[in-house]
Amino acid sequence: MRLAVIPGDGIGPEVITEALKVLGEVAPSVETSTYDLGAARWHSTGELLPESVLGELRQHDAILLGAVGDPTVPSGILERGLLLRLRFELDHHVNLRPARLYPGVRGPLADTSAEIDMVVVREGTEGPYAGNGGLLRKDTEHEIATEVSVNTAFGIRRVVADAFNRAEERPRKHLTLVHKTNVLLHAGSLWSRIVEEVSLEHPDVTVAYSHVDAATIHMVTDPSRFDVIVTDNLFGDIITDLAAAVTGGIGLAASGNLDITRRNPSMFEPVHGSAPDIAGQSMADPTAAVLSVALLLDHLGQRESARRIEASVAFDLATRDQASPGSTHAIGDRLAALVSSNTRAVG
Amino acid sequence: MRLAVIPGDGIGPEVITEALKVLGEVAPSVETSTYDLGAARWHSTGELLPESVLGELRQHDAILLGAVGDPTVPSGILERGLLLRLRFELDHHVNLRPARLYPGVRGPLADTSAEIDMVVVREGTEGPYAGNGGLLRKDTEHEIATEVSVNTAFGIRRVVADAFNRAEERPRKHLTLVHKTNVLLHAGSLWSRIVEEVSLEHPDVTVAYSHVDAATIHMVTDPSRFDVIVTDNLFGDIITDLAAAVTGGIGLAASGNLDITRRNPSMFEPVHGSAPDIAGQSMADPTAAVLSVALLLDHLGQRESARRIEASVAFDLATRDQASPGSTHAIGDRLAALVSSNTRAVG
Ligand SMILES: CC(C)[C@H](C(=O)O)[C@@H](O)C(=O)O
Ligand SMILES: CC(C)[C@H](C(=O)O)[C@@H](O)C(=O)O
Repeated sequence: MRLAVIPGDGIGPEVITEALKVLGEVAPSVETSTYDLGAARWHSTGELLPESVLGELRQHDAILLGAVGDPTVPSGILERGLLLRLRFELDHHVNLRPARLYPGVRGPLADTSAEIDMVVVREGTEGPYAGNGGLLRKDTEHEIATEVSVNTAFGIRRVVADAFNRAEERPRKHLTLVHKTNVLLHAGSLWSRIVEEVSLEHPDVTVAYSHVDAATIHMVTDPSRFDVIVTDNLFGDIITDLAAAVTGGIGLAASGNLDITRRNPSMFEPVHGSAPDIAGQSMADPTAAVLSVALLLDHLGQRESARRIEASVAFDLATRDQASPGSTHAIGDRLAALVSSNTRAVG
Repeated sequence: MRLAVIPGDGIGPEVITEALKVLGEVAPSVETSTYDLGAARWHSTGELLPESVLGELRQHDAILLGAVGDPTVPSGILERGLLLRLRFELDHHVNLRPARLYPGVRGPLADTSAEIDMVVVREGTEGPYAGNGGLLRKDTEHEIATEVSVNTAFGIRRVVADAFNRAEERPRKHLTLVHKTNVLLHAGSLWSRIVEEVSLEHPDVTVAYSHVDAATIHMVTDPSRFDVIVTDNLFGDIITDLAAAVTGGIGLAASGNLDITRRNPSMFEPVHGSAPDIAGQSMADPTAAVLSVALLLDHLGQRESARRIEASVAFDLATRDQASPGSTHAIGDRLAALVSSNTRAVG
């Protein structure tokens, strides 16, 4: 396996070190190449994602990304110029975000009996993220700003199909479309019709619909109702942060940016950002990065290794001191040791 | 005071009856005219909001709306043709949504010590709600749907100014802009610049910014941080449902659709929908409708009466049996009696 690693900014490099440590236990022969992209490179060279680097990234089987972003860089530069550019250039149409409340983890909800175990399939290459829009009469009192949400049948169908496939493989076989069809009539109509069409090929999967506003209510009052959620890029951005929060925080939330066709390498990253306020202090929880490695292995067909990492994380979460789970290194060492003994036990 | 009443569908008429009962205690001389709009009218006549009715509505000092919507009406018809049409025609640019955790109310969060008391100023007449968009190549595999978010300096400035004015009047004097400026660069730039500009006129008000995805996390992990939030139409839709959920549910959430210029009557409505599943059973909690009446009185300058209603609601919430607060009528009777005795005590 050839793995491109983008440690990025802030706590990114710290959590990536631990993630690679754990990866090394299940895949000792992985070849990694590290790419220096993010705030530091932009400051020193003005570069965000040079074509040559993009070309090299394409030669890999997968990409592991820590986090990008720094308060010294104006908002939007790294997001649009690096992170979203990677997602768009590499056609990462399925932004996969599982949210599971692991035993032992206390989320913010009072009802601790709820079993929360959902997967959000967020569209990753269009919608309001298309970057279509503009300013007119800038800096006058008549200024107008537009943002165009672009939704294509092609783009929606492939993520809806993927979401149904995932629902088929899960015990509850339940899929919820989250949108705002009563207001965004055009995009809503297209999303609804495609979900209806694709559902005909999956008679086993029960289908529900929730407006995005109502979905946020359900996330905090009845999160167990969700199994697989399929939704657009912006709604997915919002509800996956909320789903992460109710399952113990973004310190535990992993994500995969997948090109399902496998024409381009998929990219795996913790949902959390670069957290510059705690960077360099070995305070970051590398668990989300480690779980992102599990998603990576799963995507590459190494299901067994992925399961071992998940089981190790589950064990550590159930037994760790929640109030002081240890330093970044300590958690990484613990997870690596657990994976190593799991590997020996199984292998 | 001339009040137009639109009871609407489902539980709408039930909660409106109680809201008017309470209003009668503080404003016995109010003249009401009732307008039959909603699912039933659409079914029998095909009409949503006839011009003549719109003209009559304009002759009132305010509008009180119960809820519109019914599963027998295709999604979007009543929303765009009636509810949003009223908001747009009557230039309801400030969609005001307070969210307060009243003593005695148990929300879904484990941390019951958090004092939650925020007001969301949601823009009400533009953004992704503009209805600008379309379908191309419908029902082919090359179909495209667009939705255009339209944001004007004029439209943003007036709600931002209103939000700062409200922040000035609150003890904490804190305002948070919620947006997604790192992805929606054009709209985000305009919103940010206007907040910065208007903030210069309010040196007392501290200003924060939160991406909408992060804001949903904060709503469940640290809701006390919010005082006044200003945001666009769609983000406001989403976060106000979540804010309502964390403060005890949409059974308690009131809203005002305000034309700050007072050229058009403002409209007050509970945030909840028509809840057809529980309609006709006297099971709906009329508290949100009653609190909407308080917002109405406040908007019309009858501050004292508004405070009396709020105090009565606060007392009832602190003392009611949360598990079985009583029938719609019983709650309405209790609130009316409390307001009446408060009125006698004060007046
Ligand atoms: C950083 C930002 C561009 C990004 C997004 O909006 O997709 C982030 O919030 C995420 O969810 O991965
Ligand atoms: C019913 C719908 C059109 C409406 C909205 O999206 O504004 C509702 O959700 C609300 O928040 O009042």
